Amino acid sequence: MVVIIRDGAGEEAIRAVIARLESFGLRAELVGGGRRRLIAAIGDAGRLDTELLRAMEGVEDVRRVSEPYPLCGRHAHPDDTVLKLGGVRIGGGQFAMIAGPCAVESREQILSLAPRLKAAGAQILRGGAFKPRSSPYAFQGRGAEALGWLAEAGKAAGLPTVSEILSPEQLPLFEQIDLLQIGARSMQNTELLKAVGGAGKPVLLKRSPAGTLRELLLAAEYLMAGSCGEIILCERGVRGFETETRFTLDLSAVPVLKEKTHLPVIVDPSHATGCVRFVRPMALAAAAAGADGLMLEVHPDPQNALSDGAQALRPEQFESLCAELRRVREALEAKA
Amino acid sequence: MVVIIRDGAGEEAIRAVIARLESFGLRAELVGGGRRRLIAAIGDAGRLDTELLRAMEGVEDVRRVSEPYPLCGRHAHPDDTVLKLGGVRIGGGQFAMIAGPCAVESREQILSLAPRLKAAGAQILRGGAFKPRSSPYAFQGRGAEALGWLAEAGKAAGLPTVSEILSPEQLPLFEQIDLLQIGARSMQNTELLKAVGGAGKPVLLKRSPAGTLRELLLAAEYLMAGSCGEIILCERGVRGFETETRFTLDLSAVPVLKEKTHLPVIVDPSHATGCVRFVRPMALAAAAAGADGLMLEVHPDPQNALSDGAQALRPEQFESLCAELRRVREALEAKA
Amino acid sequence: MVVIIRDGAGEEAIRAVIARLESFGLRAELVGGGRRRLIAAIGDAGRLDTELLRAMEGVEDVRRVSEPYPLCGRHAHPDDTVLKLGGVRIGGGQFAMIAGPCAVESREQILSLAPRLKAAGAQILRGGAFKPRSSPYAFQGRGAEALGWLAEAGKAAGLPTVSEILSPEQLPLFEQIDLLQIGARSMQNTELLKAVGGAGKPVLLKRSPAGTLRELLLAAEYLMAGSCGEIILCERGVRGFETETRFTLDLSAVPVLKEKTHLPVIVDPSHATGCVRFVRPMALAAAAAGADGLMLEVHPDPQNALSDGAQALRPEQFESLCAELRRVREALEAKA
Amino acid sequence: MVVIIRDGAGEEAIRAVIARLESFGLRAELVGGGRRRLIAAIGDAGRLDTELLRAMEGVEDVRRVSEPYPLCGRHAHPDDTVLKLGGVRIGGGQFAMIAGPCAVESREQILSLAPRLKAAGAQILRGGAFKPRSSPYAFQGRGAEALGWLAEAGKAAGLPTVSEILSPEQLPLFEQIDLLQIGARSMQNTELLKAVGGAGKPVLLKRSPAGTLRELLLAAEYLMAGSCGEIILCERGVRGFETETRFTLDLSAVPVLKEKTHLPVIVDPSHATGCVRFVRPMALAAAAAGADGLMLEVHPDPQNALSDGAQALRPEQFESLCAELRRVREALEAKA
Repeated sequence: MVVIIRDGAGEEAIRAVIARLESFGLRAELVGGGRRRLIAAIGDAGRLDTELLRAMEGVEDVRRVSEPYPLCGRHAHPDDTVLKLGGVRIGGGQFAMIAGPCAVESREQILSLAPRLKAAGAQILRGGAFKPRSSPYAFQGRGAEALGWLAEAGKAAGLPTVSEILSPEQLPLFEQIDLLQIGARSMQNTELLKAVGGAGKPVLLKRSPAGTLRELLLAAEYLMAGSCGEIILCERGVRGFETETRFTLDLSAVPVLKEKTHLPVIVDPSHATGCVRFVRPMALAAAAAGADGLMLEVHPDPQNALSDGAQALRPEQFESLCAELRRVREALEAKA
Repeated sequence: MVVIIRDGAGEEAIRAVIARLESFGLRAELVGGGRRRLIAAIGDAGRLDTELLRAMEGVEDVRRVSEPYPLCGRHAHPDDTVLKLGGVRIGGGQFAMIAGPCAVESREQILSLAPRLKAAGAQILRGGAFKPRSSPYAFQGRGAEALGWLAEAGKAAGLPTVSEILSPEQLPLFEQIDLLQIGARSMQNTELLKAVGGAGKPVLLKRSPAGTLRELLLAAEYLMAGSCGEIILCERGVRGFETETRFTLDLSAVPVLKEKTHLPVIVDPSHATGCVRFVRPMALAAAAAGADGLMLEVHPDPQNALSDGAQALRPEQFESLCAELRRVREALEAKA
Repeated sequence: MVVIIRDGAGEEAIRAVIARLESFGLRAELVGGGRRRLIAAIGDAGRLDTELLRAMEGVEDVRRVSEPYPLCGRHAHPDDTVLKLGGVRIGGGQFAMIAGPCAVESREQILSLAPRLKAAGAQILRGGAFKPRSSPYAFQGRGAEALGWLAEAGKAAGLPTVSEILSPEQLPLFEQIDLLQIGARSMQNTELLKAVGGAGKPVLLKRSPAGTLRELLLAAEYLMAGSCGEIILCERGVRGFETETRFTLDLSAVPVLKEKTHLPVIVDPSHATGCVRFVRPMALAAAAAGADGLMLEVHPDPQNALSDGAQALRPEQFESLCAELRRVREALEAKA
Repeated sequence: MVVIIRDGAGEEAIRAVIARLESFGLRAELVGGGRRRLIAAIGDAGRLDTELLRAMEGVEDVRRVSEPYPLCGRHAHPDDTVLKLGGVRIGGGQFAMIAGPCAVESREQILSLAPRLKAAGAQILRGGAFKPRSSPYAFQGRGAEALGWLAEAGKAAGLPTVSEILSPEQLPLFEQIDLLQIGARSMQNTELLKAVGGAGKPVLLKRSPAGTLRELLLAAEYLMAGSCGEIILCERGVRGFETETRFTLDLSAVPVLKEKTHLPVIVDPSHATGCVRFVRPMALAAAAAGADGLMLEVHPDPQNALSDGAQALRPEQFESLCAELRRVREALEAKA
């Protein structure tokens, strides 16, 4: 059972609710922080009258947890959540293109690339500043400086920005970034989820290569159990036995997630396939499968990229793909 | 090294080639049968002059096996192979819809269903007669009788037919069936591959749930090392850790295979997802990914199907999906 | 519900049982063959009185199928099944060593190897005659001739023999072989399971690389639904993402299977790891995990083996491993 | 190429080395911190004379990175690393038992359990204080308070302690804990690896469920590229398709890792199997496979555990398992 605490409820009221739950033999724990707090009551709640509980001071709502993710589940919120980032909308039929280099390599790179991407069809500008690499000897990103360059380029081009955050301490550095990315390696970094969930910014949450869809939704639930209501989920390939692609892109995740949750779902075919020749077909496939958007790596000079050059599109390839995607999406919408 | 034997070459000529290969320390083995025979020569063939070999009686061609599947590899045959089944073409830009029930349950069922499927957009009629089920207590198909009903229904409706063959002894029963299906469980059934490869019919070869793409192509190579040149490859989901879908549909297999082989590649989203609600989005995604066709389960009354009802489309759902697929494919072709 | 038919029951009696089942709205199907026949009754059997059914002519027993494998499940047969092959016993605390070359390469090879293996500790002699290889150009085994050599070597050395059978037509060739192996690629070859299940010989059934334990037990159930009661299950590695070993040896399968079934469970660390350096530790681990035996590849000259030389032990390595295994097993038995 | 910087080298000397590397067209980056710093030089280092570089001020050593983990690779350090924790040794033939509850639930619990575990055979006391749970509504651990109870119990019983750390900010709370655990979900949390690598404490690093062995070793390399030389690797199950166990315990990882690295390797069968009935056989198997120790969950009252009760041994089961393990290890050592 989950008791949702009213915004601004006093500590005494909360303690009274916890005492009531414990008097029924339940173990009650206050979770979340920031603007949204919950009490998770674990144990057999069958004998407990939820109406009595709902009537208590400081209680906004009471939900029996039949499903493990009461906040991000479709059941709780039948309509699609539509995120707004500046003038861009994602979800509920609004398709969004997120594009940019794997890593922001220099101020010049991103300042000159951003307007080209916008002209080609990008709506959100991506660029890594802190890169969580498998090897300690691989390029780790340009850090805080790169975040500044990204924000500057986004503002100049009129594009909202997204970049990956690796730890709670980095939060202040992301003030100018519009959308916080929690990467695949961090999907179950609970400390990061809690901190980012309370940061008041929309979040792009990527699925871990070993993460089930249930675990992805539970990670989103961590964010929502904080005060974060604006979350984009991103499928980016799971670990499988096939070695021809870097990961196995699980596109069925799109319709499964769209059924289970009201949150928008996008796809990153660049990391999934690891190979630029397969990015275009899988991007088109993701759109046809019903994704709410795409996240693509685009680099002005892939052969000299400091990271992941093998999977980056050139700007002109991106432009041509955007045109194809528009045609496919129009074909799908013509249905109604 | 592979030595391709000329059609009609005498046994003595072949023995001479083998002796020549063995004199260079190679182990030579005659493989294949039917119309195409090869000698596989294993060992260090570096010192051997291929021109001398090519000059020998009975030798059609000599190929160094840099790639493990010299016959089905794209390298050997840069153009797409286009299959012709009656008036239907698959491959090289020709998209084919294969549809029908998981199992042919009765003569009436398939006779009444076939014309509805054709009207809706099907080009090839599928229907199982011998069903390889996980449990010995599950419905195993109507057998030889069902093959007759399927052939009759196909002829009446003007649709070529496809059905799964489980063992070499069943070959005579499939005389009236146009396309022999080797199912996912049989992908590495080498005895079946050898027999079907020599049977003179086109083959639909499904990927095993644990099969790498390399193994799928090697299975196709078994067929081509027989006399079979008309093969359709089919991705139908691999075994992964996600339990929301029955298998994990590996759509990236489509562009990877299209690059590696000249053979057409289709997708079966019905078995992959195991759930009718996910068949439509994954069918559209497969078309967008560049597949040469789809194989879909359609049943007039899915709730009472004897097998796999949960994943079967109703005929009207199939019709509407065909219309959507046409629009998506037109959108993709508009590109040029 | 499963109705077990009495040995020798007449066709009329069987038809009467089927009619009774159908009169309750169930779909009844006769399965099996050889000495054991069953009627699988599918549908809601709740209203049916099993005692009435049990009283019918030709009925030996009636079992409600709460579990999907009523014959090989531990529930049906709480005691361990102990196989006897000549003087060798497997199961119920009797540990068996199966050893020999991947492929029988020549008469001399197997005749000289067999007594060395026996002296070192082998109790059953293995050797492949028909090799189901991924590539059509790889060595496919010496065929029927090799079966003769294997049987001869086994007899000379006083060792029962095991070899892999690939298709029902090969059955007559295996007359002199004591234990029929159904390989990993054939675990769901239902035609082969049916034929071998009715052949009157004990069977060694290997788990498919994509096979769940449930599917392995259902494959065993196919054999038992024939007349085969003597089955050894073999874990030999599943397909996983790790590439340092050829497959991922799932040793937890041993205690899980021992709990679910009464059949003996052995392990093949040679194929699982694909690397001789890892065979010894995984063989010891399998014994410690409670396996009823091991299947190991041993070759007199692994560097010149025609197949799988990288994973074969030399005879002296096998002998030293047998000694270690005895010590580990004594240490485990000292417990009681 | 990796240039290892001498302890205490000045910034100017380091800049000179970087300039030299860059003059050869390499991209040079200073990594690590704490007591060990390295310069990773990426690019074609073929033309560069390592001897010249080795002669520069501030340079301790220069290594060509033929393998991706030069510090934790066996090549760099042929002898086993042996960790010392108080009087306990792990690695190089010294086997260590780590045991305790999943979560420290109360001061009384851990104070009364610790001496029982020591008497039964435990050498290191484990207990979770911060629990990274999949669901935000699950018990998250007793936090800092529990760390104090664990340290107190360890001291009273004479057992070194280990507990999982989730973020760099928690480091000060772990001052009294002897061994820092980086959990499976954090294996690629690069910020945590960098912080813990510089903390001057030994580390227990668990493999991620989707982590290849190469990635595990690269994560250990992050720690060693800091100043951490005392690392224990832990296999705890990978994500596979089999659902009878929670994860698929990849025991082959033990011999593979022992070959590739000098670091000790232990196994956690509790989390891998998720089921107490399978813990004993897999613990014995791990020891037989050559593991340097085990990590086991033991709880005085598993049925009322706040987390993971299903996989916890009772103290008397643990004691009996320790006795069995001793016998198996003696049997294995008797070999020499």
